[in-house]
This record gives sequence, structure tokens and C-alpha cells, in this order.
Amino acid sequence: MRCSLRVLTSKNMSTDFTLACPIPISDYPQVLLAHGGGGRLTNQLIAKMFVPMFSNPALEAQHDGAVFRVGDGKVRDDKTGDRNEGDRDEGDRKGSPLLAFSTDSYVVHPLFFPGGDIGSMAVHGTVNDLAMCGARPLYLSAGYIIEEGLPMDTLWRIVQSMALAAQNAGVQIVTGDTKVVDRGKGDGVFINTAGIGIIEHDQHIAPQSVRPGDVLIVNGDIGRHGIAIMAVREGLEFETTIESDSAPVAGLVLQLLDAKIKVHCMRDLTRGGMASALNEIAESAQVGMAIEELRVPVRDDVHAACEILGFDPLYVACEGRFVAFVAPQDAERALEIMRRHPLGADAAIIGTVKADHPGIVMMKSRIGASRIVDMISGEQLPRIC
Amino acid sequence: MRCSLRVLTSKNMSTDFTLACPIPISDYPQVLLAHGGGGRLTNQLIAKMFVPMFSNPALEAQHDGAVFRVGDGKVRDDKTGDRNEGDRDEGDRKGSPLLAFSTDSYVVHPLFFPGGDIGSMAVHGTVNDLAMCGARPLYLSAGYIIEEGLPMDTLWRIVQSMALAAQNAGVQIVTGDTKVVDRGKGDGVFINTAGIGIIEHDQHIAPQSVRPGDVLIVNGDIGRHGIAIMAVREGLEFETTIESDSAPVAGLVLQLLDAKIKVHCMRDLTRGGMASALNEIAESAQVGMAIEELRVPVRDDVHAACEILGFDPLYVACEGRFVAFVAPQDAERALEIMRRHPLGADAAIIGTVKADHPGIVMMKSRIGASRIVDMISGEQLPRIC
Repeated sequence: MRCSLRVLTSKNMSTDFTLACPIPISDYPQVLLAHGGGGRLTNQLIAKMFVPMFSNPALEAQHDGAVFRVGDGKVRDDKTGDRNEGDRDEGDRKGSPLLAFSTDSYVVHPLFFPGGDIGSMAVHGTVNDLAMCGARPLYLSAGYIIEEGLPMDTLWRIVQSMALAAQNAGVQIVTGDTKVVDRGKGDGVFINTAGIGIIEHDQHIAPQSVRPGDVLIVNGDIGRHGIAIMAVREGLEFETTIESDSAPVAGLVLQLLDAKIKVHCMRDLTRGGMASALNEIAESAQVGMAIEELRVPVRDDVHAACEILGFDPLYVACEGRFVAFVAPQDAERALEIMRRHPLGADAAIIGTVKADHPGIVMMKSRIGASRIVDMISGEQLPRIC
Repeated sequence: MRCSLRVLTSKNMSTDFTLACPIPISDYPQVLLAHGGGGRLTNQLIAKMFVPMFSNPALEAQHDGAVFRVGDGKVRDDKTGDRNEGDRDEGDRKGSPLLAFSTDSYVVHPLFFPGGDIGSMAVHGTVNDLAMCGARPLYLSAGYIIEEGLPMDTLWRIVQSMALAAQNAGVQIVTGDTKVVDRGKGDGVFINTAGIGIIEHDQHIAPQSVRPGDVLIVNGDIGRHGIAIMAVREGLEFETTIESDSAPVAGLVLQLLDAKIKVHCMRDLTRGGMASALNEIAESAQVGMAIEELRVPVRDDVHAACEILGFDPLYVACEGRFVAFVAPQDAERALEIMRRHPLGADAAIIGTVKADHPGIVMMKSRIGASRIVDMISGEQLPRIC
């Protein structure tokens, strides 16, 4: 695809491009909120526009972060999983550790909510993306896009919260950038963080490693983050204050890896919730999944709030929850390790990976019926992260 | 400073902080455009709020990027420059290459301008920040914050431009993120890139390495980027179209380093222009500088435009220009190497580093008078990058 682009000099780089837009303009003449919602439209944008254009193995792996060695100039090909002991030995000999690199922008509205704020989220989210690659998070960058007129004290609270979250997560914010846009051209503050982590084990954690028989384990109850945000935004009061689950799960993940649990893949349940995360992996790995509604932990107050708001908890975002795809022989031990950790106290086995119906996630409902859990196509909860 | 913060759990992390805001609220109750302008207010925000809060050696070095080894868990202390051959040998033996990590958000308005667009800039800017650390840029992340309603075709043009710029600069975009904010809460699209580069030489390139006697070399004429943006924004027409100088300078920088030129520091001339860049280094290194106005290359059309607009070219942003602080014995050779490179054809020696008047940049004007070139305090050109 790229070879048909004329290689222009930097001077006239953007004057004309001849490739047709890969997203049908007749269907989507403009970017919609749903293109950022983490569901089908987001995935379409990534798969059709970004991946072919920026084509390289790391991006094509469609993982939560890129994995590569610095020093050998090669990005690991996560599609074929071409890494073996020989490869690793060579890398070590050449002085090139295996790194993970990930980024996320945070546009959550409102900036502060029960259980967190945009600052702590901006740390947790990127730390978690690195953890999902099996990496120990080390360093973060922080880029602020501030709307002119943001109260200085608000910025200060957010910066303090970021610093504290970084300290708690064991990462250092080592580089940053501040931009200010004119009033009415932003919304308080947006934050981007990018993170670097190091992979210190031999497992190949990626969608392509998922196998039929793998057990799906979630580290706790789902849906609290999205409901906490919606409650503040809509001015809803429930009997109890529902607090976001926003938290850095890297410590918990590293305990699993240190215990040599065979973790084939992990995915955090952010935009689009558990339903989107499972569908993404099912599609990437070309496997089916079967989960049981009764096994998916949802708190009563979150259930009640979802009913009032007309949401399905499976589609509501979390910020401290992930699903691990674990080899069957290690599932019980993984569950035990999780449950001993504060961020995994309510961990549960929720289903298994199947060889049949590849790309499809099936759920046995409370009443015993089976239904397809599809990826969200519209936008259920805009700007929850 | 951080020790006086209560360490809260992630649950109630942002509920209350007791530290007083380090920016006097009475003077600056709100964030101003100038806080993002790259001048005195930006520096105050960084020095008083971000650096103490996120304190670590990389950030305190106030370089264009952080420099560290991954694998030994240590960030290089650029303030003391504690790196020597033994240190490096140990690092190599332990399999830990020296990396640079940098980030920038791009909020330029308009999105397209003569000589570039937000997409190519987002690549060049971060590539150049890594180059300023003496690193060979390898990998970029890309985070998009899109305003609902952005024409899909506009996004497509930007993505193509980024891909092409990355290809030309020899970097791979390996990970990304897309967020969409509601109409009226953004401005078309903002892009954040973070970048990772590798440092493959033994020089300690940092503000703290600058010494009296060092020669200041700029790689070409200044001010074109800012004027190109202003011309489009204000609908001005000059006799010639002034094109942005936006370009990736890493190749040129690596040629200097490969030729063993003793480069003590480099700084790209973005927000706040040459004046701000030189003042930042003068302050960090506690040295004086003397430059000559007649030696600073400014194109006639840029000069004329600056006069019409009431700008001083020294304060106008570039996106493909940097000043290198070179040991005096290597200055002529560095100039030759630069001039042989397409991005250094108009390179010029513009002044020297002085032991007297530390922190102050002096300029001998066209008519022979000397004046202080101060850092910009307000906002001359908002959103030029």
C-alpha cells in the first residue's frame, strides 16, 4: 500500500496524496464519537487506516503495546510469534533487552470522579497497557493539552495525583510537554502518557498465543469505572457512592509471571468493556470463547445502576480490571495468586477458549440461554477514559 | 517535597492534597496561553510544578528528552553527568543500551500549512527532540485526540503524511491510541507522539556539558515555520509563499556525531524560537552567550514578514532548526559537515559561550550595539506547534 505513495520531500510532503480513504466516506464522512469508543468503529479505523499506513509487525499484532528489542533494530513479529530461546540468547548477548512501549490519551470528563481523576488514570491506564504485554513498567512521559482558563489549582491537583499514582505504581515520569489551546478549543485538560516497560520472562504474551482450552480469569468485579463517571456526569445518586476501580495492576500481573503461570494473553477492560476486549482477542486469535454470565463478578449497586441507565455491565469500562487467558493446568493456581492480591480479591474464572465458532464470544445467560456477545458498534459511554 | 504528601490508596487518591500550589494563584489563577508558549511562564510551570512533583534526575536535567538505561533501573543523572567509560562498560555488559525518551503534543492551527501539516510535524518534532539528546530515533507512538465531526478525509491526509514523514525520518510508528471528544471540546485533531531512540556514542550531550568557549552553530535560517503558520492563519500573502522549515534533523545530527565532532549540547528552536532556546541553556548551564545579529541567518522574505507582523525573528519558532554547542577546535569542521547536508546548507556560526554574565544571552545588533536577548514572557504566536 505504501509503495504507491510518491515519496515527496519534507517540503511538499502533504500537498497531495492519491490513495483513496480506506474508510468509506459515504458511510462516515466525519469522525464520530463512536470512532473513539473502543468498539467496532474504533477497530475499523485502526485496522483499515492506521495499521496499513504505519505498517510494521508491532502495530499489526494489535496488542496493547509494541514489543521490541532496542539494539538489534528489530520489532518482534507478534503475528508469528517468532521468538525462541536462540533469539533471546542472541538478543541478550547483543545487549538488547526486550521492551514494551505503549501510549494512551486521556480525555475523561469530568476531570475528577469518585475513586480517581484524570491524573491518576493517565498513570494507571498506561501502566496497565504495559502490564498487559507482560512488562514491568519503568518510565512514563506526560503530555498535557490544557485549555486556556483552566484553574491553576485544578492543574496542581491533577499533577499531584499523577505523581502519587506514579509513586504507587513504581514508575517514574521522566519527560513531558505542556501545550495550551485557546478557550473553547479544548475541555479543561487532556493528558497523554506513553510508557516503557521491560519484559523479563520467556513467555510470549499476545493474542496469537491464545489456545482452545485456555481459561479466562478476570481479576475482579466489572463496570465500576464507567458507572462512577456516569453518576457524576448525570448527577445521579445511588444509595452508595460507586467508586471507580482505577488502579495499577502491574504488580498483580508480575506476581503471576513470577510464579511461572502460563499466561497466554491479557487484556484490560477499558473502553467498550469486557465485551469488546474479548471480541478483539477472539478475532485476533481466531478462536471462540464461552463465558457464563453468572460467573462474571458485578457488584449489586453496579447492577442496579446499569439497569437504571439501560447499560449492560459487559460493555461498561473498567480501569483496573483485566482478563487473563491462562493455560488450563495453571488456572486454579493463577486464581489463588490473584485472590491473595488486593486488586484480585474478587477474581473469578468466567469461561474458556473454544476451537469452534472462531471470532465469536458466546455467553450462557442467567437463565441458561446462550447468546452472542458482540462488540459494541456505537458509543455507549463517551469519554470515560 | 513529595514526602509531605500522604500516601493514599488509589481509591481516595485525589480527594485531598494539602500542598500549596507552587504557582502563585493570586498572579495566575488560571492557565494562560502563554503557559504553553515555550517562554518564561512555560518554564516556571515546569520548574515549579512538574519537576519537583515528578522529581527524578532525568526530568531535573531539563533536556529535550530523558536519557536512561533500561535494565539497570537507573536514570542517568544529567545534572552531574555521572557517566564514564566504566559506567558504560558495565551497562553494556549487563545488556542495557542507553536510551532517549521524549514526548510532544501537537496542537498546531491550522492543521495544514505551506511546507507541512500536523501529521508531519508530529513526527519531525519528536524525532528532533530525540536527536537533540544525541540519539538515533527508532520508534514512535501516536496518540490522536479527534474532535467529533473532523472530516474523515482530513484525518486520512494527516495519517498519510505521518506515515510518509516517519518513513523519511527512518522511524517506525509502533503503537497508538485514538480518542474522540465531543464537538466544540477540541479543535479538529491534536496529536501526541512519544519517541524512543538509542544513544550509540560516548558524548555526554546535555546543557550541563556546555563550556565557555563553545561555538554556537545554527543549521539554517530561522523563523520560517512561525511565519508560514501566521501567514495562513491571518490570510496574509507575501510575494513568495513562505514554507515551514519543518524537517527531521536526526540524520544531520548523527553525521556530526559519527565524525566525532565534540557536541556539548543541542537544542531545537521550536516554541519561543532561538531566543528562548539559548536562554534555557544559558540558565541550565549557568553560562553567558554572545551572538551576533548579522550572523543569524534570516531570509529576506521572513524579515519582511516579521516587520509587517511586528515580530522579532529571534522569537519565531522553527521546526527543522537547532543550535549546536560545539567545542571550539571542532567548530569549522562541524560547519562544513552541516553545509554538505541538505538540512544544513545555510548553517552558520552565530556566537560563542562566555564565562561572564551567566544565564544571560547578549546580542551585538546590526548597528553594533549590545543588548540582552531575554526569554519571551508572554505569548507571541500561540499554537504554532
